[in-house]
Formats: sequence, structure tokens, C-alpha cells
Amino acid sequence: MNVFLQTVNSITGSDYAAGVKAQERLDSLTKPPASLGVLEKIAVQLACIQGQSLPVLGPKVVMVMAGDHGVVAEGVSAYPKEVTPQMVLNFLNQGAAINVLSRHAGAKVVITDVGVAAEMEAHPDLNLRKVRAGTRNMALEAAMTEEETMAALEIGMEMAHREIDRGAAILATGEMGIGNTTPSSAILACYSDNNLASIIGRGTGLNDGGLKIKQEAIQKALQVNQPDAQNPLDVLQKVGGLEIAALTGVILASAARKTPVVIDGFISTAAALLAWKIHEKCRDYILASHLSQEPGHKVMLDLMGLQPMLRLDLRLGEGTGGVLAFSLIEAAVKIIHEMATFAEAGVTNKE
Amino acid sequence: MNVFLQTVNSITGSDYAAGVKAQERLDSLTKPPASLGVLEKIAVQLACIQGQSLPVLGPKVVMVMAGDHGVVAEGVSAYPKEVTPQMVLNFLNQGAAINVLSRHAGAKVVITDVGVAAEMEAHPDLNLRKVRAGTRNMALEAAMTEEETMAALEIGMEMAHREIDRGAAILATGEMGIGNTTPSSAILACYSDNNLASIIGRGTGLNDGGLKIKQEAIQKALQVNQPDAQNPLDVLQKVGGLEIAALTGVILASAARKTPVVIDGFISTAAALLAWKIHEKCRDYILASHLSQEPGHKVMLDLMGLQPMLRLDLRLGEGTGGVLAFSLIEAAVKIIHEMATFAEAGVTNKE
Repeated sequence: MNVFLQTVNSITGSDYAAGVKAQERLDSLTKPPASLGVLEKIAVQLACIQGQSLPVLGPKVVMVMAGDHGVVAEGVSAYPKEVTPQMVLNFLNQGAAINVLSRHAGAKVVITDVGVAAEMEAHPDLNLRKVRAGTRNMALEAAMTEEETMAALEIGMEMAHREIDRGAAILATGEMGIGNTTPSSAILACYSDNNLASIIGRGTGLNDGGLKIKQEAIQKALQVNQPDAQNPLDVLQKVGGLEIAALTGVILASAARKTPVVIDGFISTAAALLAWKIHEKCRDYILASHLSQEPGHKVMLDLMGLQPMLRLDLRLGEGTGGVLAFSLIEAAVKIIHEMATFAEAGVTNKE
Repeated sequence: MNVFLQTVNSITGSDYAAGVKAQERLDSLTKPPASLGVLEKIAVQLACIQGQSLPVLGPKVVMVMAGDHGVVAEGVSAYPKEVTPQMVLNFLNQGAAINVLSRHAGAKVVITDVGVAAEMEAHPDLNLRKVRAGTRNMALEAAMTEEETMAALEIGMEMAHREIDRGAAILATGEMGIGNTTPSSAILACYSDNNLASIIGRGTGLNDGGLKIKQEAIQKALQVNQPDAQNPLDVLQKVGGLEIAALTGVILASAARKTPVVIDGFISTAAALLAWKIHEKCRDYILASHLSQEPGHKVMLDLMGLQPMLRLDLRLGEGTGGVLAFSLIEAAVKIIHEMATFAEAGVTNKE
């Protein structure tokens, strides 16, 4: 509880004045004002976060949190839950999409078992921080106890603090957990007036029958648990998940440490939504990477006013969209540093 | 005329069978089918283009064509036409956005003066291939003669052939030309049933008055010249531009050489639209990088069935969106090469 309160209480907004100076510099560069669109917004946001008009680059880390979901017993996923530990091993063996894309991006992958429903063997690259071997079935009872929720949140915070202490300048969020679009949709349902069916998608590829089962499971979970939307910790505990809680912790800690955090797809964004409900100023530190195929993703991003950079129809998770966005964020920083000004280049500015 | 006919006549469709094999491999990798969305489509497209199920990477080049527009005399741009040669100098001095982003992407920038309305000094990095010092004012007469149009097309083809001969494995298109959203909108108007006003945008930042002038200039150009939409060369000649013609040549030559070509924003896509009308099979070789702020851009992309990867609200041109997409295309190739299969990783596949 100590880490949680200390972290949340140390979150403050980013430095708006540094962003104004960054925009002034961007406007002096040899391009029409705002013509680099989102790249300019990223440079300004990083300036605000770092409190300096010329933001700097540094080591990139993707925090992959793994956990299982009791609600999988209802039949909400196209894959069996054995795939969660198998994929964690695949991460450790460098064979998964997140490994390939992180190597491409020059980013480090940090993998944490916060709730896999299987015994994971010790491995130098695996952080064994299992709170519980998967959540309870939220269609029947609360997914977690309050203690489990806080433990998972604090593990995420501790892992983020550790990586930032070791030099990480930017984090991305990733996850592995068969069934985890189901709790993510349930979380969104607590904060959206949209029709429930419209915010529930096919996850890793449910057929029509599976989609119906998933909708019923979410409806049951909301009825049985009656999560209190006014209390994001209650939502997280009742219809969330261990890896989602850990990612919420990563995002809150990133904000507390004034470190930009790039969110991946639907599950990461559910974690961000809860982080934002816990402390709205953490929004200043979040960058949205891509728009997923899950129909609820846009709804979540719109709630927070976040604009995704990539439209790649991804629906994989793991942090894949997040690490793909690293290159764009680095491009934005290089733009503000390296472009010539109108004066330097002798180019006539707009009248 | 020789280069033009030889190039166009040698265009054939890409190798669909290689793409089927690439998709089979993608489906064997440790991820739900199609969950990497557009990245998978890119890998398949490159497999079709290269005629091998495992596409390979290679040197990247952005072809920046510069030219001026007589129609600027009508007042269609927020910037004076002196900015075209000034920006070409900025490119040569490495100070522009395209230089910064190409360094970031590891891409070479090839700059060609195909029609700048100023004498450009010789420079080792500048290809001096000026056809004419800017087009004529298309609001009063045809922008180019047939000979000028063919010359500019062939220069684009020759430059693309040269870079591919030197080892380029992928090209992107870029341009510099004050006023060139005006001919691009006029080209689109020949192929779209949309209301003219809805496909004309603010370019580099026109105010409402400027936008009205631009609309009137385009309307006049269409009335005076009566371009024949059935004949894309007629459209190009009457309401196009020298750098647009050169880019059309680059795209056609890329297709002829079975080399992927990444198109940038509105102007590049106008060139692609004409290339596609000249030979529809060149569509197989085109990748769309980003969706620009220009309202007509989506209309053009939809006409060709192209899906842009990035949503960055760019409206700069130069090839900036194209080179930003290089990293995503390389990521797609690495995915198909480096990810583990379900069998290799011992991961249970979907029932």
C-alpha cells in the first residue's frame, strides 16, 4: 500500500511552459506551421513531460505483464489458457512478435509473471512475481481480492520504478493473458454509455457463438459484482485482472517519475483508463500507439482524448503496437533537434 | 517516348502464388491468424512483388522531385514560389524534415530539379533535369505541352531505373513544389464524383479567402482545359505538374522493375492515381504510408483500394510520410523471417 500511495501522491501535471517553448521552436523550423501534425504534438508532449523545450531520447523498455483469467472457464477465448505460459516461454526464447519488433525498435523487453495459472520455471529474464495463479471467474465472483489487486498494482509500480532507476527514458505497456479482452471490455463498460455489444469484440478470433458467450459472461460479471465506477480500484478488483492491475501500476509510476509511457492496444488502454481514473494527471504522460481491431478501443481512447499514431489493424497485444510507435516518437524528437530554422536555411516564411 | 513505352509495356502483375505461401507461413507463426493486421498484408505484398515467400530487405531511397506551378500566380498557396528553390537548397544542406526523417530511417534522399522556376546551382547531390522553369498557369492554358509531360515522366523513370540499378530495394516518393496541392486536386477531380469543394484543402495553410481562390482556380483550369479522364496523359499534361509527372514515372518504373514503392501524401498519391490509370497493374507495387490532412487524400486512396499505415495528420510532403513508413515495412519483413512457429515454440494453436 505504501508504494501505491507514495506513487500516486507524487503524480503532478507536466510542464506546460516547456511545451509552449517547444512549439515555438517547431514553428521556427522550415515547414508550414503544424504540418508535421502528430509528430509535433509528440515533441511538445515530451517537452512538457521532461520539463525542457528540447526533449531528449534514451533507453526504451516494454513492460510485458502476464496473467490468466478465471473467466476463460466460460468459453470467452478462441485459445486455451495453456497458451499463456507457453507464450511466456516463447517470449523468453525470443520467438514472439514482441521480441522481433523490440529488436527492430532497439527496445528491451521486461517480462513479469504476475498471475499466470501455471508454475513458471526460473529464468534470468523472467520476473517471478505471481500474486495468484490466475484470477477467479468474474462471471461468478470478484476476479481478485482487494489485497491481490493492490499487490499486482504495486508489482507494476515496482517494476516501472526499477526500470526507470536503471535508465529507461520511455516505457511501453504490453501483456499476455488468454481471455484478457473480456475483463478489458468489462472495465470499459463501467465508463461508457455505449451499448455493451458494441464494445465487445472477437479478441484473438472468436466466432459468432464465442462472441455471444463472451457478451453473456461480461453481462453476468457486471451483474454479479456491481463494480462501482466511482471507485476505479473496485472496478479493477471485481472485473479486472492481475496483468491489467500491474499495467495500471506501470502507467501510474511512469507518470510519478515523469517518464513517457506508450500504451499498446485494448488491454493496455483499459489499464490506462483505470490509471487515469485513479489520477487524471497521468494522462499527460501517456502516448497512444495504435488503433486496434477491437471495437471498444476507439471508445476508450476517445474517453481520454488520446490519438493513436498507427492504423495497422493489430489485435495481438504483447506491446507490439507500443514498440512500433517508438520509432515515430524518436523521429519526433529528432525533428525538433535537427531541422533547420527558416532563418538558418534562408527560406522565406509565410506572410 | 522510348523509355516510357518500354517501361509501361514491361509492367506485369505481381506473383500471387508467392503471397499465398507467405500467408501460410504467417499463419504458422505464434500469433492468432491475421492478428498483425496490416503488417501481415505488407509482408504478403512484398512476397508477391519479389516473387518469393520470404521477402527480403535492402537499401531504401526516397525520390524527391521538385517543380513549380504557374497557377501560383492565381494566389493558390500560402507561400511564395521562391520557397521551392530555397527548400531544394535546404534539402541539399540536410536541414529539412525529409533529411532528418531519412537519416532516422536509414534512407538515401535523391533530389531532382525537374521544373523549379529558378536557376539551381550545380551540386553533387542535385540532379539537374529541369524540363521547364515551372508549368504554365493551368487556370489559363494547359500546364504543359505533350513533349514536356513525356520528358518529365521519363526523367522520373530514368531516375528510378538508375537507383534500382544501383541497388535500391524499395523507393518512396516525395516532392517539393509550392502550389502543388492545386494540380493534385484538379487531377482527383477528373476521377471523383465528389463535390469539388470537398476534395480541395488548405495545402500548407490557406485561410478561407485563399481556399476560395484555390477552388476558383481549379474550376477554371478544368473548364479551360477540359482534361479527358479517359486519357491520364491528357489529365497530367493539362492540369498536372512536372514533379507530379516525374513521380508518376517513378511509380511506373518501380512496377516495371518489381520494386515496392511507398507513396507519401496527397501529391504523391495524385501521381500514383495517374500511374494506376496508365497501367492498373502498377497498383500491386504501391504501399500507402499515411493519411494526410488534405481532405481529398482519402478519396484517392479509396479509389485505388489503398490503406495507409500512419495517421499523423501530416501535410508537409517531401516524402516525409513515406520514409516514416519504411520502419514499419522492415518490421513486417522481420516478422515473417524471425518469429517462431507454433511447432517450434511448442505453443498450442487454436482448435
